[in-house]
Amino acid sequence: MKAIFFDNDRGLEFRADYPSPSPCPGDVLIAVETIGVCRTDLEILNGYMGFVGVIGHEFVGTVIEGPDEWVSKRVVAEINCPCGDCELCGAGLGNHCPHRGVLGILGRDGAMAELTTVPAANLHRIPDSLSNDRAVFTEPLAAALRIAEQVNIEGARVVVLGDGRLGQLCARALTIGASSVLLVGKHDSKLQIAADAGMDVRRVDRFAPDRSADVVVDATGRAEGFELAMRTVRPTGTIVLKSTFATDSGMNLAPIVIDEINVVGSRCGPFAPAVAALDSGDIEVTDLISHRFDLDRGAEALHAAGDGRSLKVLIDVRKGVSS
Amino acid sequence: MKAIFFDNDRGLEFRADYPSPSPCPGDVLIAVETIGVCRTDLEILNGYMGFVGVIGHEFVGTVIEGPDEWVSKRVVAEINCPCGDCELCGAGLGNHCPHRGVLGILGRDGAMAELTTVPAANLHRIPDSLSNDRAVFTEPLAAALRIAEQVNIEGARVVVLGDGRLGQLCARALTIGASSVLLVGKHDSKLQIAADAGMDVRRVDRFAPDRSADVVVDATGRAEGFELAMRTVRPTGTIVLKSTFATDSGMNLAPIVIDEINVVGSRCGPFAPAVAALDSGDIEVTDLISHRFDLDRGAEALHAAGDGRSLKVLIDVRKGVSS
Repeated sequence: MKAIFFDNDRGLEFRADYPSPSPCPGDVLIAVETIGVCRTDLEILNGYMGFVGVIGHEFVGTVIEGPDEWVSKRVVAEINCPCGDCELCGAGLGNHCPHRGVLGILGRDGAMAELTTVPAANLHRIPDSLSNDRAVFTEPLAAALRIAEQVNIEGARVVVLGDGRLGQLCARALTIGASSVLLVGKHDSKLQIAADAGMDVRRVDRFAPDRSADVVVDATGRAEGFELAMRTVRPTGTIVLKSTFATDSGMNLAPIVIDEINVVGSRCGPFAPAVAALDSGDIEVTDLISHRFDLDRGAEALHAAGDGRSLKVLIDVRKGVSS
Repeated sequence: MKAIFFDNDRGLEFRADYPSPSPCPGDVLIAVETIGVCRTDLEILNGYMGFVGVIGHEFVGTVIEGPDEWVSKRVVAEINCPCGDCELCGAGLGNHCPHRGVLGILGRDGAMAELTTVPAANLHRIPDSLSNDRAVFTEPLAAALRIAEQVNIEGARVVVLGDGRLGQLCARALTIGASSVLLVGKHDSKLQIAADAGMDVRRVDRFAPDRSADVVVDATGRAEGFELAMRTVRPTGTIVLKSTFATDSGMNLAPIVIDEINVVGSRCGPFAPAVAALDSGDIEVTDLISHRFDLDRGAEALHAAGDGRSLKVLIDVRKGVSS
């Protein structure tokens, strides 16, 4: 089958003859239809998690082998594959299972291929009314919806830092519940898309942080973003850290103590409400699609996603079902 | 009057003829009896907050001028002096008032002197049964008790990093409620004091972090402490950042996102329960006193407090009431 394969020595490769996967017990085999490119995919190309294999974890497809109730169903799939036996799994924290595989990220081939396998337990049905182009946003939108599971958003003044894919989705997701949401970014074109969708937006060079936001979401993936977040959040307020970063120079974390700031790391979120919000149209996403490529041109798709001017890059595996 | 005065140009000075303070409306005048030295005092000597004036904020004394109900009463005093008029004060967050003075730390002379003034609203009465040597721990013990106001400690497995003054008090305070508390430090003599008080202790070089603690309190004041905390806390657990630090080299904050860790900055706490816990003997503190000096030797007291082997250093202003 066709697949986009990565290893650290050879880099990213399109392979026309990658072996088709065989589902293990409990898994289903899925014919992949549409794939989204995520910042994590780009980080893997830089060595994140030391991953070797088929990359990709945002996808929609149709089950072609597995339990009868799933065969022929169009689905999305949660990406964490927990062991089910450890203390964390027992505590309902399977997403943090130390023995977990993660689709296309850790110990398990991902979805940038014609076929992929996932545990049946990870599947969520996609209603006929929901197009692939919207359904493929389920995983990143779930990550955005995770914030409201962790932090009380009700009536909060929210600032989202970062106008990229994740920041855009976080801002849209938080509009439900928050008293106000301001998206701060550095790209006019991306801010315009958010403004056209009804969001309040501000260019970062015209943004004067005044320590008044109840909740600040840092989706910049940069140390400067976190430092700006500390100057934007009110005392005893909350910074949600949505993207990873490493500081390569010094950083003063004293404001966290002095202002008693809460910092909350936030990763994967709930799929079912994400599917529902996409299906109902409560959260619109297709305006975020900036590029699309065929699977054969997967390497170009990743290159496009790495360009600061792009938003969501999709890869079409099976034409005709994608809209 | 005698006072310990600091400014950045001349450093720390004992002054025998510092002008006695005159209480403003709403303030009381206090004859200081016993003072505790805090890490923040040492940080001020290194330029923290750019403070100029009489340092010191942990003290017990007797009111000698002010409203009748307070005169002749032995008291401790909260250190934040909020404006009372701003949005944060209105929200009950006076400790974070942007216009606040802070005793001996920000815009207001402190307590390392024969006399000091504080707002009457900040006072807490010390029962006759509570000695000065114990009452002087009210402010740092309140800071330790603050943790349980911010984080659910009930039944939690807690690890406290740092065997200094604040770490010791945090460990003792958290024993009430937590299912276990382990104090991790690098000083045998300090760990022995905690062990003698019934605490579980471990030398850091024999401590193997295994990401299983529900709550980790970082009272080390060092970037290494925070990095150890990230390896000690379980996924979705909480790190309480109790002391400020600045990283001077790089730091990888990715575990906060990947493990969805909560980081909670924690500063000043509630005085009334601290006085009650000291008075009842629920929290014993006098074993933490390692040095004491007269006010004339205040500079030596600060020097002793800066020695890694010391614990609580007290300054006696009026002899005879101190035990």
